[in-house]
Amino acid sequence: MTPPDTLKIGLFGLGTVGQGFIRALALARNAHAEISRICVRNVAKPRRVAVNPNILTDNPDDIINDPGINLIVEVIDDPEASYRIVTRALRRGIPVVSGNKAMIARHLPELIRLQREADTALLYDASSCGSIPIIRNLEEYYDNDLLLEVKGILNGSSNYILSRVFDLGAPYAEALAEAQRLGFAEADPSFDILGFDSLFKLVIITVHALGVYVSPDDVLCQGIADISDFDISYARDKRWKIKLVAQVVKVSDTEFTLFVMPEFVSPQKYIYSVDNEYNGVVIRGECYDRQFMFGKGAGALPTASSILSDVMARRHLYRYEYKKMSYIGRPAYTRQVELLIYLRYSDPAVLEAFTFTSISERYTSATASYVIGRITIESIIAAGDTLRRHDVFVCNIPQFFLDRD
Amino acid sequence: MTPPDTLKIGLFGLGTVGQGFIRALALARNAHAEISRICVRNVAKPRRVAVNPNILTDNPDDIINDPGINLIVEVIDDPEASYRIVTRALRRGIPVVSGNKAMIARHLPELIRLQREADTALLYDASSCGSIPIIRNLEEYYDNDLLLEVKGILNGSSNYILSRVFDLGAPYAEALAEAQRLGFAEADPSFDILGFDSLFKLVIITVHALGVYVSPDDVLCQGIADISDFDISYARDKRWKIKLVAQVVKVSDTEFTLFVMPEFVSPQKYIYSVDNEYNGVVIRGECYDRQFMFGKGAGALPTASSILSDVMARRHLYRYEYKKMSYIGRPAYTRQVELLIYLRYSDPAVLEAFTFTSISERYTSATASYVIGRITIESIIAAGDTLRRHDVFVCNIPQFFLDRD
Repeated sequence: MTPPDTLKIGLFGLGTVGQGFIRALALARNAHAEISRICVRNVAKPRRVAVNPNILTDNPDDIINDPGINLIVEVIDDPEASYRIVTRALRRGIPVVSGNKAMIARHLPELIRLQREADTALLYDASSCGSIPIIRNLEEYYDNDLLLEVKGILNGSSNYILSRVFDLGAPYAEALAEAQRLGFAEADPSFDILGFDSLFKLVIITVHALGVYVSPDDVLCQGIADISDFDISYARDKRWKIKLVAQVVKVSDTEFTLFVMPEFVSPQKYIYSVDNEYNGVVIRGECYDRQFMFGKGAGALPTASSILSDVMARRHLYRYEYKKMSYIGRPAYTRQVELLIYLRYSDPAVLEAFTFTSISERYTSATASYVIGRITIESIIAAGDTLRRHDVFVCNIPQFFLDRD
Repeated sequence: MTPPDTLKIGLFGLGTVGQGFIRALALARNAHAEISRICVRNVAKPRRVAVNPNILTDNPDDIINDPGINLIVEVIDDPEASYRIVTRALRRGIPVVSGNKAMIARHLPELIRLQREADTALLYDASSCGSIPIIRNLEEYYDNDLLLEVKGILNGSSNYILSRVFDLGAPYAEALAEAQRLGFAEADPSFDILGFDSLFKLVIITVHALGVYVSPDDVLCQGIADISDFDISYARDKRWKIKLVAQVVKVSDTEFTLFVMPEFVSPQKYIYSVDNEYNGVVIRGECYDRQFMFGKGAGALPTASSILSDVMARRHLYRYEYKKMSYIGRPAYTRQVELLIYLRYSDPAVLEAFTFTSISERYTSATASYVIGRITIESIIAAGDTLRRHDVFVCNIPQFFLDRD
């Protein structure tokens, strides 16, 4: 297979990222890529970016069936529509660059199979950590058995909100509105706030870090929706920040765990200084200890630059080989890992839902009450209904991994 | 060309890094690589690492002429010997992984030509920034026209010394001895202290960042040998640190410059918190703004883990394509760039050697005197003799790039 002289791109989606991609591509004189066709929901909608109206269409077939198009870039919001487009394109052998983390995290095993069957590629570095090249580095550079942990702040919107609330004392609602105004938060912010965005990225990262796919439904995912002034004061008193942290960790030679959870972060940690819309990822391994990567994790142009990197990679026929999926001795996923957590509640009855191994601190007052104790990830997941329905905030105290992060 | 089932490695050098590589490889169960032969200067020398004595040799031909060996790992100190081995191996079509930055920086154009002629590969990510995957990322992920600047602390030894001297108030000689004891500094520390190690890495980085080779002889390279207590106090009073910084910067659409120089670093900068033996690199570009990569830049195991990454890449026949060297509109190297510098001296006569465009501050006292002024890189290079022979310390005040780093 010889690389194409010119990439003729069919673009799906002309929202924030799609428009950013057009701007980034215009700056890339050596890209040898052009946008042949753009599929949007509403052709007549006025756009901020100048686009030749003749290449706009609302019919996906105009791209999928066009033999002149040799690369599809898919940056639409809707995971269902994204799934239909990406799978159709892959089945036809057309390579795809996508940033849709929800779709990819849910369907990765099938998407890997389709790539193999049709001998084509799906690249999605833009799906995780905006401009930070985390997937490519895990796949290529950390392609060995030394990797022990990938841990970081993967969601720019929630981090922006936490920074405003935490560092500037802004009210939560105001910080959220500001994040939306700046284009960091989705129209439906629950995706960011409840941790799902981080979760989907973590599921994708885990495939490239350890060669194991874990369904998002099987992973502990706690967000920051229930954070209260009391929680913020509690952390501040100890000179900590609260960050929404996603992590995949080898807990032994044969097992690993992964979860998304708010975490108390002390100033000594790398991720302490990752503020606002930035993402930061710590990669820990034997021999090299810790590597830290830091960059803009949200916004049209940083994501667009990542899409551009994936597009350029197709000029050289790059594809993920999913090398670690064929490793011998891949570790197995376990939820039987004990965390030390802070659990703040208003109604004492909620405590019944949590099977603590041990409780080391109890605090009660008229305003708020909390316990600190050890509990397995499995037990937190089992209390999911209580966590969703009541005013309860859980936060990881990284004691288990104390010497590690 | 199909990838080899097993990499049979001929290893040159069994010093700190060579021994580290043997340890890292032993941890990598999925490497499918084994060390077939090791060439050392003195076969009889006792080693700390357990090696089968039957595979030791002092004759390079035992590796180069062995048809069973399909990869050479070269981690010897001597650049001349390294050059002979690497060029012989490449001519024979044997791929090589090397960490010898001095040799690579001096001979890169020839080494690129040899790779093409013999259709083989030379990988050297370990040559720059120890465990940080900077070369691979510049070559693959930042393979586009957006890149504007790569700037960082590339030498772990001098940074370790500066951290000790600066943050802990340790005397220079003591800090240097400690760096040597810990294995961060070479036996001949001038390589680190005078900035040559950073320079060689910067020359290699520039090829992969902008696609242009600049000979190390043509680049401004100022080290930290002449740093004095006065300089340290001066920086401390302003809440700055002094760091040895290497940078390559596009100064316009058509031109770039590069240089190695001590720099005053304020606490707002990413590299301010890069201490001890760590390296930190800021990659700046259009769209993605700044990316920061941080990790251990010196020591046997971090470097060995980087060698291992390059070795594993050969399982998939990876090679650098030097894509940017064929870019249209590559920028041209210029030294006609004005810096704002601090120049501390004891003998006022030295000032005659420096053609300042303008001087904004002058200070004289019995202990030390300095001027602050604007001067081109070309003019600092022209004053090289004076800089080498006299007690003069120059330090960049990053005003020109003030809004950029």
